[in-house]
Amino acid sequence: MTENRPMDLLARSLNSQVLVKLKGDRELRGRLRGYDQHLNLILDDAEDITEQTHQELGTVILRGDNVIFLSPSGKPPGKTPAKKTKKKG
Amino acid sequence: MTENRPMDLLARSLNSQVLVKLKGDRELRGRLRGYDQHLNLILDDAEDITEQTHQELGTVILRGDNVIFLSPSGKPPGKTPAKKTKKKG
Amino acid sequence: MTENRPMDLLARSLNSQVLVKLKGDRELRGRLRGYDQHLNLILDDAEDITEQTHQELGTVILRGDNVIFLSPSGKPPGKTPAKKTKKKG
Amino acid sequence: MTENRPMDLLARSLNSQVLVKLKGDRELRGRLRGYDQHLNLILDDAEDITEQTHQELGTVILRGDNVIFLSPSGKPPGKTPAKKTKKKG
Amino acid sequence: MTENRPMDLLARSLNSQVLVKLKGDRELRGRLRGYDQHLNLILDDAEDITEQTHQELGTVILRGDNVIFLSPSGKPPGKTPAKKTKKKG
Amino acid sequence: MTENRPMDLLARSLNSQVLVKLKGDRELRGRLRGYDQHLNLILDDAEDITEQTHQELGTVILRGDNVIFLSPSGKPPGKTPAKKTKKKG
Amino acid sequence: MTENRPMDLLARSLNSQVLVKLKGDRELRGRLRGYDQHLNLILDDAEDITEQTHQELGTVILRGDNVIFLSPSGKPPGKTPAKKTKKKG
Repeated sequence: MTENRPMDLLARSLNSQVLVKLKGDRELRGRLRGYDQHLNLILDDAEDITEQTHQELGTVILRGDNVIFLSPSGKPPGKTPAKKTKKKG
Repeated sequence: MTENRPMDLLARSLNSQVLVKLKGDRELRGRLRGYDQHLNLILDDAEDITEQTHQELGTVILRGDNVIFLSPSGKPPGKTPAKKTKKKG
Repeated sequence: MTENRPMDLLARSLNSQVLVKLKGDRELRGRLRGYDQHLNLILDDAEDITEQTHQELGTVILRGDNVIFLSPSGKPPGKTPAKKTKKKG
Repeated sequence: MTENRPMDLLARSLNSQVLVKLKGDRELRGRLRGYDQHLNLILDDAEDITEQTHQELGTVILRGDNVIFLSPSGKPPGKTPAKKTKKKG
Repeated sequence: MTENRPMDLLARSLNSQVLVKLKGDRELRGRLRGYDQHLNLILDDAEDITEQTHQELGTVILRGDNVIFLSPSGKPPGKTPAKKTKKKG
Repeated sequence: MTENRPMDLLARSLNSQVLVKLKGDRELRGRLRGYDQHLNLILDDAEDITEQTHQELGTVILRGDNVIFLSPSGKPPGKTPAKKTKKKG
Repeated sequence: MTENRPMDLLARSLNSQVLVKLKGDRELRGRLRGYDQHLNLILDDAEDITEQTHQELGTVILRGDNVIFLSPSGKPPGKTPAKKTKKKG
């Protein structure tokens, strides 16, 4: 199971776009350049996309304790009407 | 009792649908791909189901300190009128 | 005094109904299947009894830092008018 | 000074009534049956005395990080008009 | 500098009146009987002086993480109009 | 990957202007003179730029747990209308 | 870089006036007599300068987790209209 630890997924996401949801309803997006075991992150070309008008931040060091979740796909999340989802089978 | 530690139940829930209740009244659902000792989680095909309109998130790394509880059954919780529940016997 | 540490009482409460008061005025009830030293809990047949209408949750893993207190008696708490309580004697 | 560490006073308060002031303006009272180094407590015959109408809780395990202070005297606190208090002499 | 560590000042304040400012705008006063390295305190003849009407608490064990600051002088703080203060010279 | 840990980027940002976003919507700017592993920072010629009217603070020691993110570019963040951003390819 | 760690600057600020910004919008000022590795501080001749009317506190032990930043210059912060600041060159 070792390769499915959260830190391993971070390692495989280096240089990819990630979406980061922060406490306080803030949302950042950027290219993951680095991280450490506290989930501190380095994002390149980071943007604060909390509001309609995005804010360009350049490179940022993000303190890990602010993170709710991060998505390595980096795609802006799609909104779909509530629907059945696949159950495990 | 070793097999009834919370981490053991997580291990047995790998690849199953889990429902995750987060601080701040947020609710996610997804397939548990990985975890670590901090209750950091990897969810595949994750959805934010907090509101009527679900939000597809793809794969997410969830920081464990946001979790209130997670339910490995993954079923959307059923609402029933207040009733007597079984006492231990 | 060893047998009167909080963790010992948890051990003796395995398979009993417990009532768990959480931060944020939430209340769960369920059968204690497991726990660890962080007060992370596994509850079987868990219910969210915060509101009149109970919500069935099945099995849940509860993160310990959300707990205010838990009561191994599991009885719904009784309301009584303010009264004198026994002093230590 | 060893005998004046907070943990030593807890040890001497075993089996006595204690009043526990919790974060979020909650107040419990009960007989101290056990504790550990995190200030996790076991209270027997515990009551939630936050409001006029007391709530009987039976035995509870209280997570220490919720505690503001606890008073081993266990007497309901007396209200007195603001007055001079003894200075150290 | 060893004798100017916060813990050393606590040691020298044993048996003196201390004023303790707590998170949540609460204020206690009492005679410092003991402490530990977490800034957990034992206060004798403690009073909650948050409001005009003081509340006698007897002996209390105060959990250190609630403390903002404590003043070993124990004098009720004096209110003075904004004024120049001495600069270091 | 060692050179892409957050602490390494801090080391390379010494003597540069940094922008620091703090919890509670506060924003500081200054020249990074030092730091430690807790993300405690020393900023020279620091300014609180939270509001229109900046507040000069001189040299400050900033406690790391208040940091959301810091940007070593130090440029005031640019506001641009929401737009497509590059996807990883 | 050793001499530019936050703790080193504290050491060099002993016996100087410091301004301390606390969580919850509180501001103290005093002469730094001591500190430890948690950023617990001893301030002599401390004043609470949060409001117009300053409050004299005498000597205080300040728990480090309340600190946002502290400024060893100790000067009351100057207010200036928003302006260009020097970029690193």
